[in-house]
Amino acid sequence: MVIYYLDKHLPEKTTNPGLEKFKEAIYYSTKGGKKIRALLSLEFYLSLSGKKIEEIDKDSDIIKLLVAIEFLHTFSLVHDDLPSLDNDEYRRGVRTCWKEYGEDTAILVGDFLNNLAFEVVSEMDSADHVVDVIKLLSSHMGFDGMIGGQASDMYFEGDINRIGYNDLIALHNQKTGKFITAAVLGGVILSDKSYKVDEFIDFGKKLGLAFQIKDDLLDVEGTFEETGKSVGVRDGGKQEQKGFVYFMGVEKSRMELESLMIDCKNLATRLKSENLLYLVDFIGNRNR
Amino acid sequence: MVIYYLDKHLPEKTTNPGLEKFKEAIYYSTKGGKKIRALLSLEFYLSLSGKKIEEIDKDSDIIKLLVAIEFLHTFSLVHDDLPSLDNDEYRRGVRTCWKEYGEDTAILVGDFLNNLAFEVVSEMDSADHVVDVIKLLSSHMGFDGMIGGQASDMYFEGDINRIGYNDLIALHNQKTGKFITAAVLGGVILSDKSYKVDEFIDFGKKLGLAFQIKDDLLDVEGTFEETGKSVGVRDGGKQEQKGFVYFMGVEKSRMELESLMIDCKNLATRLKSENLLYLVDFIGNRNR
Repeated sequence: MVIYYLDKHLPEKTTNPGLEKFKEAIYYSTKGGKKIRALLSLEFYLSLSGKKIEEIDKDSDIIKLLVAIEFLHTFSLVHDDLPSLDNDEYRRGVRTCWKEYGEDTAILVGDFLNNLAFEVVSEMDSADHVVDVIKLLSSHMGFDGMIGGQASDMYFEGDINRIGYNDLIALHNQKTGKFITAAVLGGVILSDKSYKVDEFIDFGKKLGLAFQIKDDLLDVEGTFEETGKSVGVRDGGKQEQKGFVYFMGVEKSRMELESLMIDCKNLATRLKSENLLYLVDFIGNRNR
Repeated sequence: MVIYYLDKHLPEKTTNPGLEKFKEAIYYSTKGGKKIRALLSLEFYLSLSGKKIEEIDKDSDIIKLLVAIEFLHTFSLVHDDLPSLDNDEYRRGVRTCWKEYGEDTAILVGDFLNNLAFEVVSEMDSADHVVDVIKLLSSHMGFDGMIGGQASDMYFEGDINRIGYNDLIALHNQKTGKFITAAVLGGVILSDKSYKVDEFIDFGKKLGLAFQIKDDLLDVEGTFEETGKSVGVRDGGKQEQKGFVYFMGVEKSRMELESLMIDCKNLATRLKSENLLYLVDFIGNRNR
């Protein structure tokens, strides 16, 4: 689906070798990934709307939402991996965009995907969907969301002694939780039912936290072969990360993860969604 | 207006010094600037709608468009100035965002402003305006627009011998022309009149080209004191730019600029807009 929408918005052939290379870098960066956020959004949509996956057309509003979510997520990864930010050389088992194509290209690939996400949303059939989804995504990306979370992360990484446990929770709610919540709420919005969104926001927040605690556990337990990204090092290995495992230890982190997963599974059970149950399970038990 | 919308979307005070610094960098980057694109958009709106400037409320759809245009323009400058792109140390008479706050912050400030632009548009009263403006701005920023233009520019700067005159025209139409056209068309869309947009597209293209030729002339003729940015050097002075002056010489560049300005002024005269005439004049005759 991601490829389908990239194909739709990129010229098949240009006469400019620079732009051909740029196109290559865009396709390269969007390959792979677990697509957890898009799947979450889809499952909420299916459970609430009662639709079946076979009924969904590739040009429907819900697919446009999922593609936009993937574009935004990939944009954030491509930028976060940059040398001046997380300085990661591997992602999804291959070299990061900047490592493969250069920093200049990676900055522009991220910018391109960020804008394309909004362009795809603007092509939804329902104007109400466009308004609500743009508002949802842009606000959850912003200062209180993913971008602010990354700014906050950079500050704490500058001096590891600055961060406390509450800062860590706040940071990850901004950096990971907000966008997972946006994915959940996007599915809710497109189902056209007006629900009390509070419980969904709570679900997103908890699942985001579970996701991050699992990430921190993987940083300690995982291997490169499994995770496909650099393990246990940041900033060229200059310092260790102060994550949940640092504050709570491995055992307590595992218990906290388990407790968050139970809450999330309860909602999935209430929504009678087996796929959602499976997704929550996957997030808590994945090995990459 | 820019400040008013930043204030509306940023918390007055956070408990996180990292986020306070990030906020400071956002305000720093949006200061100053000629605001030509926003003024263009406003003038087209006023001429076509017949409204007077005094009638315009700061929470109206047109003001949201102007602010979004300024945010997108600033985002593009903050990213373009980065060391791996244009490597500019001065902008609007002060140090560039990355030079003042670091590359990591500059990348995130650009990302923040990009997303905030779409958030502000999503808050317009009319859902049709939201849909049309998001589609307009995102598509003119994309592969065929500003971001693709910058990717193309980076390619040609990698080896100055690759660029020919037609490439230069195409590049500047993407990099500058498309976004100026978007500003013009944004004003047209918000006036709620359905015009044949072709002549406005043509106007945007020509004014964008005039803008760039004038920029190249300033690079040769201007001084730092006048332009407020580094003059005549790129990539730390490693190579000269192959701009319009290179291909046409100073005299022919001036003649081409004059001819483009006459075309643009003709449209302004037909729209009976003195302010638009003034803006075209300013773009062609400015000394910064």
